[in-house]
Amino acid sequence: MVGYAFMGRAHSQAWRTVGNFFDLPMRVDMAAVCGRDTAGVTRAAEKLGWRTHETSWRALIERDDVDVVDICTPGSSHAEIAIAALDAGKHVLCEKPLANTIDEAQAMVEAAARASARGVRAMVGFNYRRLPATVLAHDLIAQGRLGTIRHVRAVYLQDWIVDPEFPLVWRLRQEMAGSGALGDIGAHIVDLAQYLTGLRVRAVSALTDTFVHERPLPDNGSRGAVTVDDTALFIARLDGGAVASFEATRFATGRKNALRIEINGSRGSLAFDLERLNELEFFDAADPTSSQGFRRILVTEPEHPYVSAWWPPGHLIGYEHSFTHEVRDLLLDIAHGTDPVPGFADGFGVQLALDAVARSAACGEWVSVDVSSPV
Amino acid sequence: MVGYAFMGRAHSQAWRTVGNFFDLPMRVDMAAVCGRDTAGVTRAAEKLGWRTHETSWRALIERDDVDVVDICTPGSSHAEIAIAALDAGKHVLCEKPLANTIDEAQAMVEAAARASARGVRAMVGFNYRRLPATVLAHDLIAQGRLGTIRHVRAVYLQDWIVDPEFPLVWRLRQEMAGSGALGDIGAHIVDLAQYLTGLRVRAVSALTDTFVHERPLPDNGSRGAVTVDDTALFIARLDGGAVASFEATRFATGRKNALRIEINGSRGSLAFDLERLNELEFFDAADPTSSQGFRRILVTEPEHPYVSAWWPPGHLIGYEHSFTHEVRDLLLDIAHGTDPVPGFADGFGVQLALDAVARSAACGEWVSVDVSSPV
Amino acid sequence: MVGYAFMGRAHSQAWRTVGNFFDLPMRVDMAAVCGRDTAGVTRAAEKLGWRTHETSWRALIERDDVDVVDICTPGSSHAEIAIAALDAGKHVLCEKPLANTIDEAQAMVEAAARASARGVRAMVGFNYRRLPATVLAHDLIAQGRLGTIRHVRAVYLQDWIVDPEFPLVWRLRQEMAGSGALGDIGAHIVDLAQYLTGLRVRAVSALTDTFVHERPLPDNGSRGAVTVDDTALFIARLDGGAVASFEATRFATGRKNALRIEINGSRGSLAFDLERLNELEFFDAADPTSSQGFRRILVTEPEHPYVSAWWPPGHLIGYEHSFTHEVRDLLLDIAHGTDPVPGFADGFGVQLALDAVARSAACGEWVSVDVSSPV
Amino acid sequence: MVGYAFMGRAHSQAWRTVGNFFDLPMRVDMAAVCGRDTAGVTRAAEKLGWRTHETSWRALIERDDVDVVDICTPGSSHAEIAIAALDAGKHVLCEKPLANTIDEAQAMVEAAARASARGVRAMVGFNYRRLPATVLAHDLIAQGRLGTIRHVRAVYLQDWIVDPEFPLVWRLRQEMAGSGALGDIGAHIVDLAQYLTGLRVRAVSALTDTFVHERPLPDNGSRGAVTVDDTALFIARLDGGAVASFEATRFATGRKNALRIEINGSRGSLAFDLERLNELEFFDAADPTSSQGFRRILVTEPEHPYVSAWWPPGHLIGYEHSFTHEVRDLLLDIAHGTDPVPGFADGFGVQLALDAVARSAACGEWVSVDVSSPV
Repeated sequence: MVGYAFMGRAHSQAWRTVGNFFDLPMRVDMAAVCGRDTAGVTRAAEKLGWRTHETSWRALIERDDVDVVDICTPGSSHAEIAIAALDAGKHVLCEKPLANTIDEAQAMVEAAARASARGVRAMVGFNYRRLPATVLAHDLIAQGRLGTIRHVRAVYLQDWIVDPEFPLVWRLRQEMAGSGALGDIGAHIVDLAQYLTGLRVRAVSALTDTFVHERPLPDNGSRGAVTVDDTALFIARLDGGAVASFEATRFATGRKNALRIEINGSRGSLAFDLERLNELEFFDAADPTSSQGFRRILVTEPEHPYVSAWWPPGHLIGYEHSFTHEVRDLLLDIAHGTDPVPGFADGFGVQLALDAVARSAACGEWVSVDVSSPV
Repeated sequence: MVGYAFMGRAHSQAWRTVGNFFDLPMRVDMAAVCGRDTAGVTRAAEKLGWRTHETSWRALIERDDVDVVDICTPGSSHAEIAIAALDAGKHVLCEKPLANTIDEAQAMVEAAARASARGVRAMVGFNYRRLPATVLAHDLIAQGRLGTIRHVRAVYLQDWIVDPEFPLVWRLRQEMAGSGALGDIGAHIVDLAQYLTGLRVRAVSALTDTFVHERPLPDNGSRGAVTVDDTALFIARLDGGAVASFEATRFATGRKNALRIEINGSRGSLAFDLERLNELEFFDAADPTSSQGFRRILVTEPEHPYVSAWWPPGHLIGYEHSFTHEVRDLLLDIAHGTDPVPGFADGFGVQLALDAVARSAACGEWVSVDVSSPV
Repeated sequence: MVGYAFMGRAHSQAWRTVGNFFDLPMRVDMAAVCGRDTAGVTRAAEKLGWRTHETSWRALIERDDVDVVDICTPGSSHAEIAIAALDAGKHVLCEKPLANTIDEAQAMVEAAARASARGVRAMVGFNYRRLPATVLAHDLIAQGRLGTIRHVRAVYLQDWIVDPEFPLVWRLRQEMAGSGALGDIGAHIVDLAQYLTGLRVRAVSALTDTFVHERPLPDNGSRGAVTVDDTALFIARLDGGAVASFEATRFATGRKNALRIEINGSRGSLAFDLERLNELEFFDAADPTSSQGFRRILVTEPEHPYVSAWWPPGHLIGYEHSFTHEVRDLLLDIAHGTDPVPGFADGFGVQLALDAVARSAACGEWVSVDVSSPV
Repeated sequence: MVGYAFMGRAHSQAWRTVGNFFDLPMRVDMAAVCGRDTAGVTRAAEKLGWRTHETSWRALIERDDVDVVDICTPGSSHAEIAIAALDAGKHVLCEKPLANTIDEAQAMVEAAARASARGVRAMVGFNYRRLPATVLAHDLIAQGRLGTIRHVRAVYLQDWIVDPEFPLVWRLRQEMAGSGALGDIGAHIVDLAQYLTGLRVRAVSALTDTFVHERPLPDNGSRGAVTVDDTALFIARLDGGAVASFEATRFATGRKNALRIEINGSRGSLAFDLERLNELEFFDAADPTSSQGFRRILVTEPEHPYVSAWWPPGHLIGYEHSFTHEVRDLLLDIAHGTDPVPGFADGFGVQLALDAVARSAACGEWVSVDVSSPV
């Protein structure tokens, strides 16, 4: 694993745990964690349960005892590491966003295609596809329970930088983060909308904004410029005539991690909220008229995706379980010789949509998403 | 109408409104309101829309232009007025509780039986039976959608006397109110439980308590003793093997009017909350396992009871509409020559249960409810 | 009152009821209802409680016993009736939308200004400003409890035409309705957003769409073209740097009347849902960190706007009460010699915003809202 | 660890995980798991991450490399193992219920007292005390934010045996389970009520019932008798004048794991639901009157108990985290030389209350809980 910050901690928990709950066709050996700072990576290896550590990712991918490379670094380094790892024959799990530029992302897709031809797998880490509630939502839609999709409305609301004295961390600087709320959390709702409905975003009209333009530098008394978006809103047209609205923001006071998505179809509707991730709301227009209503499905039963591996009915799982499910599915794909979903092409599709959003916000016009790419 | 305080205001709105929304086989003429205070009743007549007023209820029931007597006085006067009115051939709508004593209630039941034989009708005003959501709940149970009833849990939570400096109003004095939370709001949940399930309370074990024993007298600086219960809790056995719990309190800080009832049966469950009176939650065990859940039914559609008389889909009604439905149903019963439900015998049944609760709380033992009465 | 369909029924209930609950400086005399069909208007007068009827609105406004003209007709006739009534010295309550064209609306604003100079009042009927919860929301924002407004997200979701066999009623034909979801329900969320925040919509980027292009004609077997929008989505910039998203649709399966608005400010947030119109959610960032959360305020207490006129704490009101409050406020304005809010200029402001939405949807570009108009 | 079924799996996850997230003064060595079946315990050791296994608990407690004995067996064996382990100088974590009989429980309390004098610690596993939301609730009450406690209402609702064809598993046989819903889930709500409020149950009036009297035997076609309660309901008086109601049932169709508790005090109220375990509802009567309401506190912030060890704001934890917190607190107590809470005396206190419930249900009278025991 490369990187051991927030995502590294979450992925480590997944790797440590997956074998205790799921039946796997192989044993997980947490060979090595990699980071540039020797002291830091040493501590991380011990704390997070990795057998050894490396300070160079190139050294990591040369090791014979490494079969899978899990990339948890910032987006700017994804392309280089992932392509090298795939070309070296290592399966790759790469955190989202796939890359910070379209060109890098496209190169990654090509590397993944080359690798797939040799039986080497690549997955992008949109972990919110791996919750029982979202998989159930996907399955209900795939079964036609919603009929023709008419509306998607998706928001991802946080509030961690409402205070103008919150410091200018790296996520607020374009040169490091690429974008702000758009790429960080907007990516999740675009991916989830496309995953759940099976429909792609075709064109967008967007606005982005930055509410607080200067913030204290973390290490001294002076101030620096915020160079990313605090919020991104866009309306969109999807495949098949559906319309959608999206909003990502870090200024929704009181909303801590409110990824919410509602989908209306001709035969039913679904609603999901990450702040209640064990629940799914489902309206079925096939119910008798006088007893129709949104059902609060507690997605904690043995019949639900992934749940039987965990606890008895009605016992909740948490955020981190999405990663455990993610690595479980990757390992099964590796064992079965199948390409993971979402693969790099799916990640690239999300990048294309986000790129269209950024361009629309800049030019003030509708921008089409190029979905005819050879990918 | 006799009495013009809170209940009188609510009933007046019902009488004024019923003809504007429902098709009735007769015209409503709001002939007279009655009260002892001449100035007060004069103002009430004008404010509440009554054509004339009387200061003696005996004068009221002698009037030829009065066909229905609506009794909105405190419980201590119900028996005398209702029996006289019925014997005078007037249809009667009597607010709950039916009476303050079992003997009075029994006499009223007998008067209603005599009256019915002559085509004169008597209804007791348990208005919460007249909400679209509660009627829908009743109908779902009657259709067998819940299967065998196992559990009822009902609470009625208010908080208007939490402050120990709240004055010693008449509702807190036994000689005037009969009892406290038990008779005032406990009566509603007993009636609603019996109405919804069709099962009677057979035996109870209860406790009652008074948390604040002295309060300021309304009109001077001294204090007087609170002589009624602040809260009543009881567990119960119902017909057919179901068990139940009930709680009525005026000390549930933050709960303003939370009449909540949940019913679990072998095939499904229902939950209702008066603070969201346009909604009913319904769990149907016949749904496919993976998409089962409590449905929030918005009981505002034309298919739902009473709703088509009001507004288009999704438009909420309020508390007072329950009274409009009540008088509409009474008028239809009068026109059709049928006895209203709940009649005085139903009100008597609730009184018997509350009496058993009070005796159980006093003696610390289980007390049976006499349901074999000749009524 | 001119017109006696859905809005006419709601307004009639308000006129009948307002004097029974509120202290007014005048007596309400429901002089006459007006409609072109003699049989229909005769029945309406009786059913809805009007003393007489007219078949010509011109006759109505010439009557000496008419002081207020309440216009509940389709939008296409608003301008002619309202201007004539105001010029005849009658106070006017005009249903929204103010008019079907900008030119008509502007003429109405001018007529209202002329009338105001002579002490004659004009109000536009955005009734959702008159709910206790929305007034409370407005007041909290006006008191600065939300700080600087950053986000508004407002939707109005209905589902009454999801079925493609639902007939081609007049609301689905442009020549009669002007527009579809946009003008009918989109108008409400634009007005409410502007009312609550005190900020105007300055520029919009919009899409509108029609999902079902042909529907059965109501009276025969053939089909006709739907010529209005089924849905309208737009993103917007408001005064003061806030951003907003809006969506109006009649295709949100399972959502019956879901007018929802959430507002995020630097110091707090609010959320409201018309399907739970007695509640307001409020997040106060001034609360201690560890006990912060969205409060579900049950807006049914004597301290809340309008509530003390109705029932004791915790007793819900319904949809129609918004109209009772509306006419009460109009009558007080007439008595006090003050111009009502929202006046015709406010209605015109909403029309300008909706016009910008329609033009943006047509041209695919951002369109500014002209707020420098001499109005 | 002794036992490796449901509780054993949950505890193993806690032991595996605690060191990865919390800073501990010692290293966790998962020395050995113990079970009677050699094949089963061998598989369990591998699957659950234990270094070795034993087939005799006596062998386990003799091992020098075992410092803590974690007892996850059925209640009938708790006393023997726990007393032996404590006397052997091993710290003990014992699952609830403490024991199946009062005598056994008392002996365990005495053993724990002897052990404590020698620096050996004993904890009973009421894991629901270890959720951020319940600890926050406890702390708010301890700070006086609720004032004087008036009401507790607690239910634990499940539905896993509603189907009469569900087999006669050991939990439905008295000789093995001791009791049914009462001891299994009723124990949790009694403990939680006492923990949160700091008040003990003093007297109870109870009913228990069995709805389905015969069930299929798991292994053949015949049927056997259900010998435990399907449900237990009781009302209670607590210290300090508070009153309470409790209900435990396995027949609440649609409720999967609904441990719900609401507490009303003179200054505020709290409500918690295990099906939404990351949330706490709090009503603070000190808020301004017009903006009072139950706050939905998302208990996922760094300021909340245990949360900073896990994920950023707004990221949910699951059921199993309660056990991780439990073992973390036990390890800190061992390191600091302090007796854990809840200790065996607390577990004994719960047993006394449950015993009173069972006796009250049997005799039909109020039964006092002996809280004057020398424990």
